[in-house]
Amino acid sequence: MDLDSLRAASPGIVVDTTDEALEAARADKSGHRATGRPIAVVRATEVEHVQAAMRWASEHGVPVVPRGAGTGLAGGANTGEGELSIDVSGMRRILEVSAADQLAVVEPGILNADLNAALEEHGMWWAPDPASRAISTVGGNIATNAGGLLCAKYGVTREAVLALGVVLASGERIDVGHRTVKGVTGLDLAALMIGSEGTLGIIVEATLRLRPAVPGGVWTIGAFFDDEVAAAAACAAITAAHIRPAIMELVGTVSVRMLSAYTGRPMQGAFVLLQLDDVGAEAIARDALAIVEAHGGDAELTDDVERSAMLVEVRRQVHFALDSFGTVLVEDVSVPRTRMPEMFALCADVADRYGVTVATSAHAGDGNLHPTFVFDEDEPTDAVWAAADEIFQGALAMGGTLTGEHGVGVLKRRWLGLELGDTQLRLQREIKAVFDPAGILNPGKVFEG
Amino acid sequence: MDLDSLRAASPGIVVDTTDEALEAARADKSGHRATGRPIAVVRATEVEHVQAAMRWASEHGVPVVPRGAGTGLAGGANTGEGELSIDVSGMRRILEVSAADQLAVVEPGILNADLNAALEEHGMWWAPDPASRAISTVGGNIATNAGGLLCAKYGVTREAVLALGVVLASGERIDVGHRTVKGVTGLDLAALMIGSEGTLGIIVEATLRLRPAVPGGVWTIGAFFDDEVAAAAACAAITAAHIRPAIMELVGTVSVRMLSAYTGRPMQGAFVLLQLDDVGAEAIARDALAIVEAHGGDAELTDDVERSAMLVEVRRQVHFALDSFGTVLVEDVSVPRTRMPEMFALCADVADRYGVTVATSAHAGDGNLHPTFVFDEDEPTDAVWAAADEIFQGALAMGGTLTGEHGVGVLKRRWLGLELGDTQLRLQREIKAVFDPAGILNPGKVFEG
Repeated sequence: MDLDSLRAASPGIVVDTTDEALEAARADKSGHRATGRPIAVVRATEVEHVQAAMRWASEHGVPVVPRGAGTGLAGGANTGEGELSIDVSGMRRILEVSAADQLAVVEPGILNADLNAALEEHGMWWAPDPASRAISTVGGNIATNAGGLLCAKYGVTREAVLALGVVLASGERIDVGHRTVKGVTGLDLAALMIGSEGTLGIIVEATLRLRPAVPGGVWTIGAFFDDEVAAAAACAAITAAHIRPAIMELVGTVSVRMLSAYTGRPMQGAFVLLQLDDVGAEAIARDALAIVEAHGGDAELTDDVERSAMLVEVRRQVHFALDSFGTVLVEDVSVPRTRMPEMFALCADVADRYGVTVATSAHAGDGNLHPTFVFDEDEPTDAVWAAADEIFQGALAMGGTLTGEHGVGVLKRRWLGLELGDTQLRLQREIKAVFDPAGILNPGKVFEG
Repeated sequence: MDLDSLRAASPGIVVDTTDEALEAARADKSGHRATGRPIAVVRATEVEHVQAAMRWASEHGVPVVPRGAGTGLAGGANTGEGELSIDVSGMRRILEVSAADQLAVVEPGILNADLNAALEEHGMWWAPDPASRAISTVGGNIATNAGGLLCAKYGVTREAVLALGVVLASGERIDVGHRTVKGVTGLDLAALMIGSEGTLGIIVEATLRLRPAVPGGVWTIGAFFDDEVAAAAACAAITAAHIRPAIMELVGTVSVRMLSAYTGRPMQGAFVLLQLDDVGAEAIARDALAIVEAHGGDAELTDDVERSAMLVEVRRQVHFALDSFGTVLVEDVSVPRTRMPEMFALCADVADRYGVTVATSAHAGDGNLHPTFVFDEDEPTDAVWAAADEIFQGALAMGGTLTGEHGVGVLKRRWLGLELGDTQLRLQREIKAVFDPAGILNPGKVFEG
């Protein structure tokens, strides 16, 4: 491949072909890696680098895989044989913050946590809060329409993005969306781009909708229940009482067991984490506590910042705990809130029948569950995928979805038609073809090749 | 045209060809009407009627214009020569309300106000709140991604819709979106459909995201200022204080003058309406009052339900007041909040230079202004459109948009390319062609023919 012309395509463009770079570009955090190695990794630090690389790729018919920090969980950024990785993690500037207009303009490579640290002095924050916030980029967050802990109260990523700069397959840049809160001129291509996993274009700039810092104290509840059914009933009762916690998480019994072993701290049962913020948080937190206790929860309530952080840390450590027991495959089904107990039961039943380990946590405020398979690296994964298939089918039968926040990537594409139906799948493929007639934008991701 | 085969296409389908029906279908509330008359109006009461009519239209190559209550302000539902109007205002059932899952499934023809009246007994509400709520449909609201008074705090319509049933040009039905709060399987066709003004398909069912009734009292502030600059400064200061009013409206001096004449109640200056709800509303309302008064506002604060309703009514009557002075053309530009004073000044300047009357109100929480031209029916509209053109260009130059919540319809389509740029406009047209290869779905709306 003519990499010299790529190196000459734009001043300052870095084309990395070291073993280390090529190897790293094969994988994300899903545990899967692409077959073969990419031809190179472009380390873009300017929009023009992305444009030049796309022009070059179009000319040479080379498939392109956009990449941020590589923290995805569905294989969406995995880059294989004959493909070019365009890494935008070096584009991490904050171009503008306007507290008065409650917006920020940023490059895609900035880390979620770094952005919020920088916004603090403006008295503002950006709500999307994936569990990976310390290591994941804003661009990746947008490309997958990622969620996180705060969605039930503060919305999904799509609701926190006003406009996007996007480099198309041709290398042209378009700007979609609006700098304003409202705007309905033409079709909503910004919303279409959000969650499109690099199949329509490469996000090179984002105008984000900020929120003012939330006034009032933050109150946190941590509670252990006998099992998931009791825990889910408590969560449902909190929703029914019209309480809107910023965070409402449910960690299942298998996960708690692993967490206990990982941390060396004795814990058992199912864990519920609640965080109440905003004006009046204390009184609402006490109402929530009463509901939790009435449902058999062994609970503590605190507004101490350190103790609060520790309770939140219990939830954030789940992934690391599971990871310490083997290879993990994190699933991501979402169901209507009321079907959560059923979904926990299904996961347990499926695990039993297939003889696999499934440790489940849930964003209980919005019905998004992460049934996580934990297995030995050398173990054949047939049983895991057969079990996952039953969980996917179960979620769809409950009016749910294959993926609440991680995306389809390579791991879930074979179930895509099952959820969308043939006609919608055809329309989606045709829309992809409008943006990418030659099929060089992240081919084989979301849609099967 | 073979209307007999249309009448035979589905049991119970009503094909109305009375003079009255055909004449009514030519216009919406924009003051514009289509050239010529439609061939018929299909009064659908079942999804199957819409499907049968679309199959018939596809077979016969007849253009179709979907219609709800006809309250649009951009001519999007106007149906002319050779076209078929499909009126879904008779499809007005609530199919499901789940307070536990915080959703409702409805047919498109239900009126916004009727829906909220029905949700009250469930302790829930649906946030989109167009000024026309008493007479406009939920389907029309979604088809235009309409806004209303509550957007700054409670979001735009797109954020309040989970899933849609859509009849395609072929007559096939697809279901897009999710019953769950989160869901990222494939491209977000629900978001693409919202605000597409009938150019991609006909919405026949909507799964709406409900909110629990807002706890706490409601406090309302009405305040008069010397001029829009002072009023806008007060609004900006409220935003800067991180207060998030449910309603923050600014009625300009020209509108207040007309309102005063219309109601016979002496009023002058610019009027600001604020409504604070939720926990802690009273204390926050008092903070807001202090800001308003510090900016020279002559203000009153009340939590009396009747008095509160009267103050809100001042804002809601603006359109009727203007209407009583002649023909109105309501524009709908949106600008970043901080540019509002500039936009008010531009409207006044343009009105002066062209010798036209422009009465402006704004959703001040989100920067959406309605410069409204008031003129005699017989007056030539050249000066009006030349003035509107300057206002559009000004909005775009300020980082704003042509239309915040009314849509493009026929009235704004010639400015579409100016805002979107050639490349994006081409992509949008190609997406339309994916859904509507024969070009029979609301042709000439949004996109010029």
